[in-house]
Amino acid sequence: MKTILGRELPDYIEGYGEVTPFQGAFKNAGIKTRKAVKLMSVNPEDQKVLDDLEQAFDKLQIKDGMTISFHHHLRNGDHVLNMVIEGLAKRGLKDLTVAASSIFPIHEPLVEHFNSGVVTGLVSNYISGPVAVAISKGKLKKPAIMQTHGGRARAIESGDLHIDVAFIAAPTSDTYGNINGVHGKSACGTLGYAISDTEYADKTVAITDNLVSFPACPIQISQVFVDYVVQVESIGDPAGIVSGTTKVTKDPVALIIAKRTAEVIKASGLVKDGMSFQTGAGGTSLAVAAELKDILRREGVVGSFASGGITGYLVDMLEEGLFNTLFDVQCFDLKAIDSFRSNVTHQAMSASMYGNPHTKGAVVNNLDIMILGATEIDTDFNVNVTTSSNGLIMGGSGGHSDTAAGAKLSIVVTNLMKSRLPIIKDRVTTITTPGESIDVVVTERGIAVNPSRTDLLEKFSHMNLPLVTIDELKALAERITGVPKCVQTLDKIVAVVEYRDGSVIDVVRQIV
Amino acid sequence: MKTILGRELPDYIEGYGEVTPFQGAFKNAGIKTRKAVKLMSVNPEDQKVLDDLEQAFDKLQIKDGMTISFHHHLRNGDHVLNMVIEGLAKRGLKDLTVAASSIFPIHEPLVEHFNSGVVTGLVSNYISGPVAVAISKGKLKKPAIMQTHGGRARAIESGDLHIDVAFIAAPTSDTYGNINGVHGKSACGTLGYAISDTEYADKTVAITDNLVSFPACPIQISQVFVDYVVQVESIGDPAGIVSGTTKVTKDPVALIIAKRTAEVIKASGLVKDGMSFQTGAGGTSLAVAAELKDILRREGVVGSFASGGITGYLVDMLEEGLFNTLFDVQCFDLKAIDSFRSNVTHQAMSASMYGNPHTKGAVVNNLDIMILGATEIDTDFNVNVTTSSNGLIMGGSGGHSDTAAGAKLSIVVTNLMKSRLPIIKDRVTTITTPGESIDVVVTERGIAVNPSRTDLLEKFSHMNLPLVTIDELKALAERITGVPKCVQTLDKIVAVVEYRDGSVIDVVRQIV
Repeated sequence: MKTILGRELPDYIEGYGEVTPFQGAFKNAGIKTRKAVKLMSVNPEDQKVLDDLEQAFDKLQIKDGMTISFHHHLRNGDHVLNMVIEGLAKRGLKDLTVAASSIFPIHEPLVEHFNSGVVTGLVSNYISGPVAVAISKGKLKKPAIMQTHGGRARAIESGDLHIDVAFIAAPTSDTYGNINGVHGKSACGTLGYAISDTEYADKTVAITDNLVSFPACPIQISQVFVDYVVQVESIGDPAGIVSGTTKVTKDPVALIIAKRTAEVIKASGLVKDGMSFQTGAGGTSLAVAAELKDILRREGVVGSFASGGITGYLVDMLEEGLFNTLFDVQCFDLKAIDSFRSNVTHQAMSASMYGNPHTKGAVVNNLDIMILGATEIDTDFNVNVTTSSNGLIMGGSGGHSDTAAGAKLSIVVTNLMKSRLPIIKDRVTTITTPGESIDVVVTERGIAVNPSRTDLLEKFSHMNLPLVTIDELKALAERITGVPKCVQTLDKIVAVVEYRDGSVIDVVRQIV
Repeated sequence: MKTILGRELPDYIEGYGEVTPFQGAFKNAGIKTRKAVKLMSVNPEDQKVLDDLEQAFDKLQIKDGMTISFHHHLRNGDHVLNMVIEGLAKRGLKDLTVAASSIFPIHEPLVEHFNSGVVTGLVSNYISGPVAVAISKGKLKKPAIMQTHGGRARAIESGDLHIDVAFIAAPTSDTYGNINGVHGKSACGTLGYAISDTEYADKTVAITDNLVSFPACPIQISQVFVDYVVQVESIGDPAGIVSGTTKVTKDPVALIIAKRTAEVIKASGLVKDGMSFQTGAGGTSLAVAAELKDILRREGVVGSFASGGITGYLVDMLEEGLFNTLFDVQCFDLKAIDSFRSNVTHQAMSASMYGNPHTKGAVVNNLDIMILGATEIDTDFNVNVTTSSNGLIMGGSGGHSDTAAGAKLSIVVTNLMKSRLPIIKDRVTTITTPGESIDVVVTERGIAVNPSRTDLLEKFSHMNLPLVTIDELKALAERITGVPKCVQTLDKIVAVVEYRDGSVIDVVRQIV
């Protein structure tokens, strides 16, 4: 069985199930279903605050084989996932599946739970650190399922990913389960990745280190979705939750790439009132934002929105009036949290509203310009952000595939080589995002346009842009680095890479 | 078949179906289901803005027998319901069911559509004006279904009330269906009664007279639930949407009742930090709020929240710091709209969050004190707010049963007589709210406590309160008015009164 991109896939993967191969970014559309949800109704005399996690485990009747979920807004400061799994391990539970929107180095204790069989499944959109290494080495019993941010929301809402219990790290919760992320010592801002879990899990538990009297204000997650509230000493380490400030890169090559990208954006004709923009929090991405800021100022253009994970850099642009509003699924720094707390034009969005392809229209559908990264790109413009070039899991799509699919102009910005390895290859180690969603690749040595975008090629041909073909870019790099050897892997599938629509776009095999 | 309150009901009602008789306010609880929803996924190239209503009708493929829904935030200024039904009538459609959260005098054109068979069913929480008279006279083919605000949300979310198309009057909508009620010439504030419709209808259409570019800000209803957007000249008449100001009564009898009610509230022991309170927008209700304001000031008490439909009077109390927050399902006046627009502690709630008994806990569950009206009360404390004493439909529960069920102290405030008719009777014409939910009845001639509230009777016995039994109150009134004659009705059932849990608490029969 093959995907439309030519990847060979088995019909059936042990521990995953039947495989639906990827057939194109919008092939799986049309009439879709948000699943029914069973819930235990709460009467006036019922109380939700429990004594501790142990009492919660008793009430929840967690059993071997269940799926429990977590959100990643506390990022590398998160205490909740480790705390819950440790408690369940002590109770002798086995064969749990952890559905965590992202996994960070702080979640290293999971590796031990893989080894002991407490956790045998993992579903996530982004996996980094020791857990990623362990999965790559075949330490997890079932293949990990790697989704996109929008795809995870889709899977939860459709029922493809059934969650038995959602544990919601809550920077603030009141006694009736109303939650916000803007107050408390572990404030993280918006809670976009936790919304589908809360609404569609069989049971939802708020775990908070800031229990307040009813009602919390503002309410980002409503009491109507929360069964229990548990107070703990600390849900996270503020130092790991947010970075203090986000900074533009000073690397001269990255600045050249950013400048070229700005030229591409201008040449695309998309810079006009009402334009929209998204970029990541990395140094090069922010350098592109800085270039765009200059363009908007110079041309007196006001954008409609910037979106995604939000940094202080985008907050500055909002406050300067360069964008009318922000759509924020996740605050990356303190400035973003402050802004979200106090500025109504800094709006929250759920992961579903952000990128779920099976709603009545995600925010990514309205994106004009998307700036993306890549660890590898192939000559069909397929992008890998899941594995390193030696096959090791070191990330995942996150919003990569979602935004690339939605945006009118998806630009991959990357050095032509990294660590003396070429980025552009005949075949990427893992396909994360299909080439049909990628319009332009900008490197320090030239700009390659996807041949399917004849409109862009036509526009750019009149400009003074260093256009090359993707094959020329590949050749340029290989002249310096040589042709890299193919990655050797074992047969065992350690991760299944799901496209945002739930089809399988690739698999990751065990590293040697 | 009998309800637990002794009302005889048929097992089956033509045009309604099987009858589940009311068995007690919390008998129907436990595990409940929010239904699955089918939707048409929207891809990046898809547009939502249609030319006009006619194009919407084409796209929606509305057929005979379908159920279409409306919200009542534009109250007696609403143009949308009439506009839509008129358009569908012109297309020759028949046998439609209108599910409108409330019906006002402005909806008089519906009567003609009853007569012509265009509309043969009506589901609503409150029906007043010519439509109520027409139903009472048997002009609607099927019995109207009269729900509560929370019960309607429950019915929609559970699937008991399936909506084919929800038409959402949108004071502001952007081109992708993000809606708010705070901007535009038809601003109405919160949109609490429209939320379940939007999320659970097969198709949802925003009808707006303020179409703005993407994205609207703030977003009260998300694009992910909206299929189409239609711009029209006017969705409503501002004069009918909100009252300019809300005023405390000057009627001396009402002021006496308010003062007595304040004494009851104080005597209950519920006046303390964190207390919560709800009242209506009527003159006597506001007079109670004014009394409570004095008590809170005098005692230095800060309440947690006030809730319900919100008036400027409650906004003043919020701004003065007498309550920490407001829960607002519907803004009653301009001051409430202004406050909701600008004050984050003035929070919106959906009808489901407000009063749906089959969620993980509605706001009414946390209410301490609820001030209620009545057209009739019986000696078992059952309350009628659905029909007049001659059997004519003139209202409905709205939030009456929801708040009465949830609140720790539900007080009915009423004159002992109205229009020379006694309010307290052996048997109310229609039971809207069961006596088990009513704790105290305050009149100008005495205060009756529900005998089941032995705790209150004990507390009040130490106070200087004019306590009487409900039978004594009845006798007091009848000494002046005489015993009123029983209402004579025809056999035909013209309305089925559903309790908030979906059971049938009473029926209304055709008037002579």
